[in-house]
Amino acid sequence: MPVAPHIKELMSSSSFIRKMFEEGIRLKAQYGDDKVYDFSIGNPDLEPPKEVKASLARIAASPKTGLHGYMPNAGYPETRAAMAAKVSQEQGVAIDFSYAIMGTGAAGAMNAALKAVLSPGDEVLVPSPFFPEYAHYARNHGGSLKPIPSKEDFSLDVPVIAAAITAKTAAIIINSPNNPSGKIYSNEDIASLAAALKAAEAKTGRQVLVIADEPYREIVYGGRKVAPIFPAIPCSVVVSSFAKNLSLPGERIGYCVVNPACPGAKELADAIIFTTRVIGYVNAPATFQRVVAECWNAPVDYSSYDRRRAALTAVLKDAGIEYNEPEGAFYLFCKVPPRKASTGPETDAEFCDQLQKHRVLGVPGTGFGRSGWFRLAYCVSEATIKNSAESFRAARAEW
Amino acid sequence: MPVAPHIKELMSSSSFIRKMFEEGIRLKAQYGDDKVYDFSIGNPDLEPPKEVKASLARIAASPKTGLHGYMPNAGYPETRAAMAAKVSQEQGVAIDFSYAIMGTGAAGAMNAALKAVLSPGDEVLVPSPFFPEYAHYARNHGGSLKPIPSKEDFSLDVPVIAAAITAKTAAIIINSPNNPSGKIYSNEDIASLAAALKAAEAKTGRQVLVIADEPYREIVYGGRKVAPIFPAIPCSVVVSSFAKNLSLPGERIGYCVVNPACPGAKELADAIIFTTRVIGYVNAPATFQRVVAECWNAPVDYSSYDRRRAALTAVLKDAGIEYNEPEGAFYLFCKVPPRKASTGPETDAEFCDQLQKHRVLGVPGTGFGRSGWFRLAYCVSEATIKNSAESFRAARAEW
Repeated sequence: MPVAPHIKELMSSSSFIRKMFEEGIRLKAQYGDDKVYDFSIGNPDLEPPKEVKASLARIAASPKTGLHGYMPNAGYPETRAAMAAKVSQEQGVAIDFSYAIMGTGAAGAMNAALKAVLSPGDEVLVPSPFFPEYAHYARNHGGSLKPIPSKEDFSLDVPVIAAAITAKTAAIIINSPNNPSGKIYSNEDIASLAAALKAAEAKTGRQVLVIADEPYREIVYGGRKVAPIFPAIPCSVVVSSFAKNLSLPGERIGYCVVNPACPGAKELADAIIFTTRVIGYVNAPATFQRVVAECWNAPVDYSSYDRRRAALTAVLKDAGIEYNEPEGAFYLFCKVPPRKASTGPETDAEFCDQLQKHRVLGVPGTGFGRSGWFRLAYCVSEATIKNSAESFRAARAEW
Repeated sequence: MPVAPHIKELMSSSSFIRKMFEEGIRLKAQYGDDKVYDFSIGNPDLEPPKEVKASLARIAASPKTGLHGYMPNAGYPETRAAMAAKVSQEQGVAIDFSYAIMGTGAAGAMNAALKAVLSPGDEVLVPSPFFPEYAHYARNHGGSLKPIPSKEDFSLDVPVIAAAITAKTAAIIINSPNNPSGKIYSNEDIASLAAALKAAEAKTGRQVLVIADEPYREIVYGGRKVAPIFPAIPCSVVVSSFAKNLSLPGERIGYCVVNPACPGAKELADAIIFTTRVIGYVNAPATFQRVVAECWNAPVDYSSYDRRRAALTAVLKDAGIEYNEPEGAFYLFCKVPPRKASTGPETDAEFCDQLQKHRVLGVPGTGFGRSGWFRLAYCVSEATIKNSAESFRAARAEW
């Protein structure tokens, strides 16, 4: 059997999210789609805006040649210019197209950025809870992920982050709105992180790259705004995708934009173009590069996510399950309720099993670095949410 | 400057192919498209077959929902079934869809396969000359590439390969038709490699994974056939893409199919599904998964490559430059001619510079592991080939 031993180990300890997603497909085949309440994965049920379909149709009908061929590894210049314009708007700083590199989803963009800065043995800090794939992404390039617990309210615990920075720290991942907590880090948190990074650099002599992972930037509640990173932290990049805001997760289209204020920004951008190539991504998919160049600012109505947030929180209140009120994204991070006749500390995995008995799929918090919690992704139909109420009640009552 | 030192080093020593491609874009902007003879990259100038456009138009017009969402990491079951059918035909063995994993191009598929089997410090053997990105792909996963010189005629030197296999050998990459030499390895070479692998396994106790990289399988001359690997070598996978045969290199759509006869084949397939996810590919792009499920066997007329091969070899004969006659693919591997007033051993990089002065772009052989040679990719228009004749003559005459 040729599989490497460390890969076997990782496979057996690996993220529950995907397992749940695939378990969901199985359960739906068994019980019918409408009898399984699948909150396992961030696969938006909103359709892409009509502009996406129209753009795809135009590409299919175009008489131009070479539409599916290689382009420079960084992407089409017009697509890079569109991403630079998008991030300029969001971050409030002028950005030339040459700082924008198209990636194979935000995951591809983040791996390219990490590979560009990690030396073997380096560490990547992340406030926890966090998206569990980050641990793989740090490991892919010879590094390791070092989770730093956030405060009770899921805001950044900057003094603890600052204390964890050493000469081995290559990067910090900031994911706001946060998956799984739904937390948006405040301007004050970002400013205080910026000051801590400056102090750390004076101490260690090393610049830490802040990677702002922002796929949920546009999905926010109550008129909130996601704090920009670029004006506060020079050594930074934004990675993002159109998976969540344009509902294109399967198309693997994302980008990395380097902060022009970063010392050696041009060299960093060139390094990320290089790593995009050598990791084997080569370039982001051609057709969807054209689609997002045309559609990146297509209007999308996210209000349905707010309605679903309200619907799901009502269901949980009714079942007697506590949760953290999300400020953005489409995840509800919930507390495992205390067990009726507890024989010891109950785990989040056990409670997710309990939910699954009632055809509800959620993901244990342990994988996100926060035991005693579980995550529900509510990018599903309102009917799914409403119909799940009885299952949540029954699962909780039996527990 | 946050870029990792080893990445800076790799960047400065990195493949000439892409630099040439991007240099070509610059020269064309300066002199005009028709005045630059760009043989630098395998970017097919054939358009995708009409079935591809039709399929894309159908997807754009489809009223189905969820067409751009996540699917299982391995890909859509119907796409996997199509790939299993394709490789069954090519390899002459029955293959279930569960052994087929969709990848982000052949590069993505190969990286996923390598990551599944490499432990830190492992070696990947490759007959040289070879596609230079393989060195990065081995390095990505903690390994290193060990080139094994092929014979004078570019056929496999099996005794030398056999002698190089140790307990550190995790994989061997077999690329037939070979980029850059155009060599197709014979059935006898594959059988003899199979015997050598069996003997090596008895000695080292380790199974070596043979990775057959076959993007050029359908592009062959004189009615040749590419020898199947699966019947001869149980521990093997085929990786390929639709970059070359359907002219879709920019879309990053490929696959890895595991030989069902491989001991632990199911575990290996699961490991490759896992590594596809954790490298950050997540899944192959959704839309082109649907396109290739419908179009993988669309008829394509490759005869124009044969005409172009004839045209380019005529141009080189006329200029007095020797080359190896390709059996497949669309590369001409040529000898650097001896210099008129030689002041020492002339390098292939110098001769490529000389060609570039005459607006001809080729790639030095050193990057492919064969100094004294250079590569010309003839997937370009016949006009480009014919019009380049004067430049080749002048460059050679001046040399």
